Amino acid sequence: MAELAYKSALIVGAGQGLSGSVAKLFVGHGLKVTLAARSVDDLAPLVEEIGCDAFACDASDAAQVAKLFADLDGAGAAPDVVVYNPSYRTRGPLVDLDPVEVQRTLTVSAFGGFLVAQQAVRRMLPKRHGAVLFTGASASVKGYPLSAPFAMGKFALRGFAQSIARELAPQGIHVAHFVIDGGIRSARRAEPADKPDSLLDPDAIALSYLHVLQQPRSAWTWEIELRPWVEKF
Amino acid sequence: MAELAYKSALIVGAGQGLSGSVAKLFVGHGLKVTLAARSVDDLAPLVEEIGCDAFACDASDAAQVAKLFADLDGAGAAPDVVVYNPSYRTRGPLVDLDPVEVQRTLTVSAFGGFLVAQQAVRRMLPKRHGAVLFTGASASVKGYPLSAPFAMGKFALRGFAQSIARELAPQGIHVAHFVIDGGIRSARRAEPADKPDSLLDPDAIALSYLHVLQQPRSAWTWEIELRPWVEKF
Amino acid sequence: MAELAYKSALIVGAGQGLSGSVAKLFVGHGLKVTLAARSVDDLAPLVEEIGCDAFACDASDAAQVAKLFADLDGAGAAPDVVVYNPSYRTRGPLVDLDPVEVQRTLTVSAFGGFLVAQQAVRRMLPKRHGAVLFTGASASVKGYPLSAPFAMGKFALRGFAQSIARELAPQGIHVAHFVIDGGIRSARRAEPADKPDSLLDPDAIALSYLHVLQQPRSAWTWEIELRPWVEKF
Amino acid sequence: MAELAYKSALIVGAGQGLSGSVAKLFVGHGLKVTLAARSVDDLAPLVEEIGCDAFACDASDAAQVAKLFADLDGAGAAPDVVVYNPSYRTRGPLVDLDPVEVQRTLTVSAFGGFLVAQQAVRRMLPKRHGAVLFTGASASVKGYPLSAPFAMGKFALRGFAQSIARELAPQGIHVAHFVIDGGIRSARRAEPADKPDSLLDPDAIALSYLHVLQQPRSAWTWEIELRPWVEKF
Repeated sequence: MAELAYKSALIVGAGQGLSGSVAKLFVGHGLKVTLAARSVDDLAPLVEEIGCDAFACDASDAAQVAKLFADLDGAGAAPDVVVYNPSYRTRGPLVDLDPVEVQRTLTVSAFGGFLVAQQAVRRMLPKRHGAVLFTGASASVKGYPLSAPFAMGKFALRGFAQSIARELAPQGIHVAHFVIDGGIRSARRAEPADKPDSLLDPDAIALSYLHVLQQPRSAWTWEIELRPWVEKF
Repeated sequence: MAELAYKSALIVGAGQGLSGSVAKLFVGHGLKVTLAARSVDDLAPLVEEIGCDAFACDASDAAQVAKLFADLDGAGAAPDVVVYNPSYRTRGPLVDLDPVEVQRTLTVSAFGGFLVAQQAVRRMLPKRHGAVLFTGASASVKGYPLSAPFAMGKFALRGFAQSIARELAPQGIHVAHFVIDGGIRSARRAEPADKPDSLLDPDAIALSYLHVLQQPRSAWTWEIELRPWVEKF
Repeated sequence: MAELAYKSALIVGAGQGLSGSVAKLFVGHGLKVTLAARSVDDLAPLVEEIGCDAFACDASDAAQVAKLFADLDGAGAAPDVVVYNPSYRTRGPLVDLDPVEVQRTLTVSAFGGFLVAQQAVRRMLPKRHGAVLFTGASASVKGYPLSAPFAMGKFALRGFAQSIARELAPQGIHVAHFVIDGGIRSARRAEPADKPDSLLDPDAIALSYLHVLQQPRSAWTWEIELRPWVEKF
Repeated sequence: MAELAYKSALIVGAGQGLSGSVAKLFVGHGLKVTLAARSVDDLAPLVEEIGCDAFACDASDAAQVAKLFADLDGAGAAPDVVVYNPSYRTRGPLVDLDPVEVQRTLTVSAFGGFLVAQQAVRRMLPKRHGAVLFTGASASVKGYPLSAPFAMGKFALRGFAQSIARELAPQGIHVAHFVIDGGIRSARRAEPADKPDSLLDPDAIALSYLHVLQQPRSAWTWEIELRPWVEKF
């Protein structure tokens, strides 16, 4: 196994189920990992398990994101890998949606991705080295009925990621977008016994996040979709 | 020419170059037209030319959008066609973008589309009749480098439109998204003499907006792209 | 109604249900129409109704396609509009498909489109004027299970159409591809009484074919999809 | 490194530059590899280097493909992984294309993929286990001007692959399509000294082919695109 070209990963939205698997796999491949989430309390088990730092940060707040990166600078831990996981959604018929919740869906799912990427890339550009990974969903590429806000937020994140992939790749920064096309297995969500592997195993997803970091720059992927073998698409 | 099934159109973002052409063509086909824009002063020439009402409304402000539709209700002019044109953009390298401007790009380009569509559809649903048309751009389907905020906003609007198209079509409401893939000819922007028709003529664009309103419900389009014959794509 | 910029249309695959509606609408807008199909017998009612010429031609055979266009040249009827409708399909599980039928699906659905377009464009290019319209299907953009050959053929036709749209638009030739995303109403296929307009009315489809011919060159569409209001997509 | 779930790979179109890298990487991960190409002579160096079997087979000929798989059956070497690499192209202005060459482009690039996949899947289905990997190109997703035949062939292969991915995934067979979006480095094609890694290194591509084989079935990819960091897209 070739050593990774990266040293230090920041995982934002680390309360999401996927984050633990990614964090552990990255640590296992020699990356220092730092976590950030709105509530650090939720991260306690993971922090203990892998022995990493955790920061409280609302990724949709510009000042908090700026402070997070300043703190990492201070700790000499500016990441050369950033994973952006946060998402939020409200759903229902268009006519019943609460504008405040719609705005929040857009802010958490997309605007926060901009805030985090901007701070991260400011540190990566001088070294012409780094990777920024965004977690998308089925809604990133298909606008489902009764879920307009999430489509708005996830399409927005994808458009943003595609734009900065084009801008930053020639500067040595690998931007990738993952379309997670199915439900993710978790403590709260198990698959039926007669439908094995019908939910995405977060450990399985993490393998593809790692793979993207292992890609030599002559063959970079900007988007990869993942779904269970039995998922309709 | 078959008569249109619609009676009354509201054009939001009516200060945009495209809006005058759409308004005039709609009026010519028997639609009553109402305009809305942040500044009604800009609309004066058009209002005078076609003799329509105009309302001041910042489409990214929920209260103003609600008031606009309440006013239209009061005037007995609830529209069965709505065109959403507003867009705003900031651009530049990711690291130089102003978060306030990025937020505004997202709000005007996408969130306002939600606000307007929600109010409009509340009036259309009981009649199971109406049309909502969204103006997109090249950036709706391709994230260009150095233009991440606009990609975010326009992808978001497209995801939103696609979601509500799926939700509302079976309820008799036609939602369509137009990908305007090129520059639009205007008083401020003329094409080179040796490149005739290399910018989109707003009158030509308007023909396709009208066509979508003419489509019988057995053959509806949800997305149509338009570009000059010489445009690279 | 502005007069069309075109004079003479050739409809290939004229035995398809869509063709009659397109032919009649085109004639009604002043176009001379010529039909071509493998069997002219099938065309007799249409020929009688609109009083046009009909030619026997297997569009997947290079020699027959060349002869068709030579005959049209001889009759002074080289078309400036060509509509390519033929399609053929075999379906079933991959392991049960007959290679001969798969080959035929590819040949009729895609290769024939090349043969016809090539002959047509040879006549259009010197005048830098013409339009070539291709009829696609849901399978043009989504590969459905148990229907691999049709996906192969229709994706192929779309790729071909997109390539020549890019090549020929700047030379004044408008190439467009129609994604017919649903079943088409016909003598043999009626919709359930409780699901009105759940099949595409061929007359409704024809309106969009006509619209594309009416587009000024500053705002051309290369692809348009059409589906019934109640169709899932 | 987890052991692969696969045992034996057949690489078709093994004369293509990519095949050597894939073959070597697969062998290094414990797969038995068999090569097939129109001319086995071209394979001699690779056969010698990795000590594998090689078969002559024109993948666009149904009888030869059937014989290849019968021979593999006889040798007890029915593959549970198949990689389809062959492609062929003719290019130029539409009006100058030779129909025979266009037909051949379609046959080699797409129809051969069907022939090979059908034979392979007949052997995989009873075990509900296997993987079929298709090599695509930029032309798989974008129809470039002056290259209509290749767009036709590569779109066709993609549509085919997508259809059988949907059909076969729930039966335990992983179908994946690789969009190789750039030139591949080879003995005949080197990159400029001032543009390092501006061509895809076949060894780098091979890593992603291997990765797809390593994916657990709860998180399968059906399509992955790869391009050099400096490639425009």
